[in-house]
Amino acid sequence: MVKVIVPASSANLGTGFDTLGLAWQLYCKVTAVVEDVNNTDNRTPPGDDLLTRAIGLVFDQAGIEMPAMKLEINSEIPMGKGLGSSAAVIIAGLYLANHLLKYRFTDSQLLDWALSLEGHADNIAAAAAGGLTTAMVVDQQVYYQQVAVRDNLQSVIVVPDFTLPTREARAVLPRQVGWEDCVHHTQQACFVLQSLANGDYRHLQLAMDDTIVQRARQQLIPGLSQVLDSAVQNGALGACLSGAGPSVLALAQSNLAAIGQAMQDAFAARGIKSQCLYTAIDQYGVRIEEYDV
Amino acid sequence: MVKVIVPASSANLGTGFDTLGLAWQLYCKVTAVVEDVNNTDNRTPPGDDLLTRAIGLVFDQAGIEMPAMKLEINSEIPMGKGLGSSAAVIIAGLYLANHLLKYRFTDSQLLDWALSLEGHADNIAAAAAGGLTTAMVVDQQVYYQQVAVRDNLQSVIVVPDFTLPTREARAVLPRQVGWEDCVHHTQQACFVLQSLANGDYRHLQLAMDDTIVQRARQQLIPGLSQVLDSAVQNGALGACLSGAGPSVLALAQSNLAAIGQAMQDAFAARGIKSQCLYTAIDQYGVRIEEYDV
Repeated sequence: MVKVIVPASSANLGTGFDTLGLAWQLYCKVTAVVEDVNNTDNRTPPGDDLLTRAIGLVFDQAGIEMPAMKLEINSEIPMGKGLGSSAAVIIAGLYLANHLLKYRFTDSQLLDWALSLEGHADNIAAAAAGGLTTAMVVDQQVYYQQVAVRDNLQSVIVVPDFTLPTREARAVLPRQVGWEDCVHHTQQACFVLQSLANGDYRHLQLAMDDTIVQRARQQLIPGLSQVLDSAVQNGALGACLSGAGPSVLALAQSNLAAIGQAMQDAFAARGIKSQCLYTAIDQYGVRIEEYDV
Repeated sequence: MVKVIVPASSANLGTGFDTLGLAWQLYCKVTAVVEDVNNTDNRTPPGDDLLTRAIGLVFDQAGIEMPAMKLEINSEIPMGKGLGSSAAVIIAGLYLANHLLKYRFTDSQLLDWALSLEGHADNIAAAAAGGLTTAMVVDQQVYYQQVAVRDNLQSVIVVPDFTLPTREARAVLPRQVGWEDCVHHTQQACFVLQSLANGDYRHLQLAMDDTIVQRARQQLIPGLSQVLDSAVQNGALGACLSGAGPSVLALAQSNLAAIGQAMQDAFAARGIKSQCLYTAIDQYGVRIEEYDV
């Protein structure tokens, strides 16, 4: 039996749109029991679901038919909430298949295929590598750097009880921005990255305060600005949409329960029920365990 | 006698426009001999030159008249070449005055005043802090984070024999950019930062390859793209305009002389004479020495 464990992740972190990703200690666990990699008599045909599509893609690239396998997904990651649930499943599938194929492909190849399935690289890099990552896409290829972050940071993630499809959240993005806004956006994203690397959180909120994407998405997430404000007012070092939302992430070193409560109250004031998750940074990314069964 | 030593710096590093700055072991040294800080009978009135304007600004803020002093500038930093010569003089003046005023003001205040004199924060932060810095300006206030960089990186800076006023280099900037270009620009800037922090230079050139600002400035710097290409072809890990140019910076770990020669040849092919500087990263930023004389 092969078990693949992949962390949830928050993309963007405010101003690092499609760039920064932070992995969480919330996991998607996929187990696979394969009869025989070379036995394709009774194979599982690549299905429509993301997991078998990801596995099938790798076998396809290898020119080998996907063998019969019993798959099970056990995920702690809420789906469609901006927490990288699909990136985690994709990474799980690709790495699982590559493991079964005795590491025929490089991580870099797997990430490029993950991009083709996911469409953007921020969650993918964080899910694969763990910690904080900064991703770059050039000619459909994913490049990323990992950022060593302190483990003195905790997160409060408030997950409202509605979903927001990423394509809907992307439809409100601007087509053009002023050059000065672009420069400021870049300054902020680099500052977020380095504040986290330095463990210097004094101006983190100022750097995470995204006036482009997050502002555009306010219309899709009732109460968003109040939820963000309530997090900071209660001591969060920074708060932002997690990925495309609707989950809202607050980073903090203390006062976590009060921050979570205030954020949930702010959603509740708009009639929105929510769930609150307390977690910390996953420093490992995807890992694979093999058991004799 | 007080001596203030401030490093040269390259702003931008390709895609980190108005954001990243890297300090060099090329120095602007200012010496000041003050008769008596409280003796204003024979004072030096703030002049038009940047150094006395910077010194005068700090005394002004302190509500104290600027005392008589004998100032001398001894700078290795070529002027008007995109190497932060004005930022170095401004930082020298502000820190000198603050030293004379027994550190009445914080570094943060000095940097905000530096911004008011210089107009952008990237060179200022690098000149003050040394190493690699990432700057952010919010409401006319300068914030920066310092990035620990390896000292295994050297630079070749080719300085053509014409100057390019920053205002002219800024006049060619776009007013608007596509959102996707902005996102890519941000991805690249974060990647440059983290490549340097990680000492992982494999994709540095891809991240430094600025298609917005640098492309717009090609018209002002004959042969620019050939000079950049020749640097990379000869083993540079990355090459870009230094600040607003016209100097061109190549980062490398070896083959420095060949890189410099190829870059100079590429300028020469356009009839442009140049000087080649070989230097390394300054890790200290501004420093102040006091001597009894």
